Amino acid sequence: MSILLSVTGFDPSRWTEALLAAAPDETIVLRPASAADDSIDYAVVWKQPPGVLSNLPNLRAVFSLGAGVDHILRDKTLPDVPILRIVADDLTARMSEYVVWRVLDHHRRGMTYRAQQAVRIWNERRQPAASEIEVGILGLGELGRDAAEKLKALGFRVAGWSRRPKSIEGVECFDGDTGLDAILSRADILVVLLPLTPDTTGMINDGFLSKLKRETPLGTPSLINAGRGGLQKDSAILRALNDGRLMEASLDVFEREPLASDSPLWRHPRVFVTPHAAASSDPAALAPIIMAQIAAHRRGESLHNIVDRSAGY
Amino acid sequence: MSILLSVTGFDPSRWTEALLAAAPDETIVLRPASAADDSIDYAVVWKQPPGVLSNLPNLRAVFSLGAGVDHILRDKTLPDVPILRIVADDLTARMSEYVVWRVLDHHRRGMTYRAQQAVRIWNERRQPAASEIEVGILGLGELGRDAAEKLKALGFRVAGWSRRPKSIEGVECFDGDTGLDAILSRADILVVLLPLTPDTTGMINDGFLSKLKRETPLGTPSLINAGRGGLQKDSAILRALNDGRLMEASLDVFEREPLASDSPLWRHPRVFVTPHAAASSDPAALAPIIMAQIAAHRRGESLHNIVDRSAGY
Repeated sequence: MSILLSVTGFDPSRWTEALLAAAPDETIVLRPASAADDSIDYAVVWKQPPGVLSNLPNLRAVFSLGAGVDHILRDKTLPDVPILRIVADDLTARMSEYVVWRVLDHHRRGMTYRAQQAVRIWNERRQPAASEIEVGILGLGELGRDAAEKLKALGFRVAGWSRRPKSIEGVECFDGDTGLDAILSRADILVVLLPLTPDTTGMINDGFLSKLKRETPLGTPSLINAGRGGLQKDSAILRALNDGRLMEASLDVFEREPLASDSPLWRHPRVFVTPHAAASSDPAALAPIIMAQIAAHRRGESLHNIVDRSAGY
Repeated sequence: MSILLSVTGFDPSRWTEALLAAAPDETIVLRPASAADDSIDYAVVWKQPPGVLSNLPNLRAVFSLGAGVDHILRDKTLPDVPILRIVADDLTARMSEYVVWRVLDHHRRGMTYRAQQAVRIWNERRQPAASEIEVGILGLGELGRDAAEKLKALGFRVAGWSRRPKSIEGVECFDGDTGLDAILSRADILVVLLPLTPDTTGMINDGFLSKLKRETPLGTPSLINAGRGGLQKDSAILRALNDGRLMEASLDVFEREPLASDSPLWRHPRVFVTPHAAASSDPAALAPIIMAQIAAHRRGESLHNIVDRSAGY
């Protein structure tokens, strides 16, 4: 039997090498031999071409190459087999690096000091202590929880929100629609780490941004989106930046990626753009985790981190 | 008896208020009533005018408003009374915020991504994991130790150097001249938190920068100086940036402050300048600590954090 590696948007060769390095006896194929290839029992995918998985009679499970699975679930012809999200310390650590980095850059007024440097102004700004700042994290899965712990260790107050009730020690946790309004009205720096689902698509819109806290120790709130571009309306974020509801934004994801070269976000003085690089999957770190799960499943063990299709993550 | 508050370079009013708020029964004076004012028994100073402390017959101790005391010790007429450095969680936390922020900005290629954003380039760069990066910290006092702990929590490898041997769990510690050469040859990101003393003045010079590691997972090493400007030669740092020995630098301190408007450091694309703002003293947080020490000393208790004048810190 063989494993299908089906990706679009990048060259899969580093993944092929890493998967084979992790399990030298396996066979990796980049496409089915036929529409109904019965030699494929597992698929490892990133934005697979729609339909490629629809007719594989022996397919037992589909693994995502990243933390998100929206790129898999949007395939309307997806067969009824378990879909697995990857959970890896390497991926979690990289995302927390990004979140802590961006929170500190907004907290320590990086954009202000870079603007002063550009015109050679030596002027110390009032700097609140981390303990005066509340960071609100939307999404309390593996990534949100780890980021919360690392922000707490630096002295920030941390609150969190998730669709379903969760509890994290030292973090005030909110859930549901009323909980969302509550955290938006109190966060000084808002971090979005939500999955993209029918419920969350386009949620960062004008209404959402109008519920943000009016005044913070730094001015007005800052937004950090390291989840999915589909969560946000780029134009609503621009409006909020320009009318002062938002002080600054760190955006790693966008409605359409790559970000169009004519997007005003590129040139906005209070926006920091990264090319969906907050926590990129490292094949060397992730391939062994995927191949170990496949080997265990073949031995009859159960799968971990199975996606709840009804919830969409 | 009264307490002398003697500062230059800024308006002392916020300190006067904070000191009185912490000890309403005390008397705070901004200058001696006479050259030999016998009513002053303690002094709280920042860059006191040379000579102002030289002739106070009842002076019992001198407190610094910050972590450093070089600004006190350079007064050649300083009387032989205990000099006290301030140690405060607030000050330590602020410095660690700055250090973690700058380490993450160099590690996560902030300067590269900001340069790409300016020309609207969407291009993900290879990102090493924190565990692939060794941060070398020069100076293992309260500030260096706390920064080391917080960097370890983010997954960085951390090594440290101090003049005298020290030991911190999970941190490879070096000391002395040979230890300095060792840490310079292995650090991917170098953080300087040393006190300014006759031994350390000008130590970040061409010879020092030529001992840095030649290649790192990020290119060449980056330098972060949050200690004192007197530790560095601005021109040597510029040479190292321009010939590639240094990839990037985050400088909070400079040979002369404010940084001269004609300094090339302002405009260097791989230098981040802050106006000696890494860990500014918050009167509300620090005044109670100083006044509590004075009250305890008046009760006959011993002083804490006394400076070793022979070492200079």
